[in-house]
Amino acid sequence: MYPALRRHIETIIPLTDAEYDEFISILSVEKFRKDEFIIRQGDVVIKEYYVLEGCIQAYHSAESGARSVLQFAIEDWWISDFTAFYNETTASLNVKCIEDSVVLGLQKQHLEEFYKRVPKFERFFRIKVTRAFLSLKNRVLSGIDKSGKERYLHFCNTYPNIEKRVPNYQIASYLGIQPQSLSRIRKALQAQADSVS
Amino acid sequence: MYPALRRHIETIIPLTDAEYDEFISILSVEKFRKDEFIIRQGDVVIKEYYVLEGCIQAYHSAESGARSVLQFAIEDWWISDFTAFYNETTASLNVKCIEDSVVLGLQKQHLEEFYKRVPKFERFFRIKVTRAFLSLKNRVLSGIDKSGKERYLHFCNTYPNIEKRVPNYQIASYLGIQPQSLSRIRKALQAQADSVS
Repeated sequence: MYPALRRHIETIIPLTDAEYDEFISILSVEKFRKDEFIIRQGDVVIKEYYVLEGCIQAYHSAESGARSVLQFAIEDWWISDFTAFYNETTASLNVKCIEDSVVLGLQKQHLEEFYKRVPKFERFFRIKVTRAFLSLKNRVLSGIDKSGKERYLHFCNTYPNIEKRVPNYQIASYLGIQPQSLSRIRKALQAQADSVS
Repeated sequence: MYPALRRHIETIIPLTDAEYDEFISILSVEKFRKDEFIIRQGDVVIKEYYVLEGCIQAYHSAESGARSVLQFAIEDWWISDFTAFYNETTASLNVKCIEDSVVLGLQKQHLEEFYKRVPKFERFFRIKVTRAFLSLKNRVLSGIDKSGKERYLHFCNTYPNIEKRVPNYQIASYLGIQPQSLSRIRKALQAQADSVS
């Protein structure tokens, strides 16, 4: 079941069929419609989610009403309010579907028990969280040092083809730029591509 | 040896004497003077460092000359250019001593071999990197949603007593505010404390 998930794990750790079966036995398939919330700010968060199908965003709504997109997730990504998930506290993020989505939910308590039975998953999630940490660090540094264009190109590389699935203003929020700036960047890149072809 | 390090690890995983001895056998004690660089932008990074004594900062110098402080480390913290350390690439950060410092250096290659011999350290570093990830995420969210005063109070809580050890302008850079704003925040908090006492 879920061959994409098995490949996703086996790029990091080798697995026997029994270990994989035990892992998927602690996951729950959940389906959400476009615009449906998986998590709302203030909810107690007990799960993280692996995306089988769809497109999802995690964003923060400030008291001023301003929205900041922190993460997108498409097929083969994990998403949650990770701070609330790990600390077993309430969410400061909304996790909401941009498209109809199918996810595998993983409860923290089930994961903790599972680590005791199959400790090699400590390595899998150590490497996954290290990559997430470095990716976030890179994003912080890019905000300091990189132009909007460079950040957009990096975004397209990180989330292949997602720019066709997500509204312009949400990508602009993720990049920390104005939607008008993103439109200008896209037009300039298109003009550049047209002049080459 | 290094009882603080042993306590630091044992708050997360139980250890036998043999396991601890094996871990410290892969560490190297290194001493640096105030203002000395442990890592310079462009260096190949092969180690991360646990701080036994001293105070260290990691910062990025942009081409414009602007500096951004990404992390401080005092006793019982780890520091490096983690992106370069994990990806075995060159540093985009400088790691520089604010005080004379004594650190324990840990080479990536030694750590990878050590994981095979003592896999429980996968759990230790999974939990450490998860905390670093959540702390960085919190910092990104705070930059969006929290006032300079709230961020300063959180900083004082994260790094107890460090505000006496680090110059004002470096703390301001870490908080993403102007040094003058930080001085105003400190004066206001001092006035508040004086009026209470």
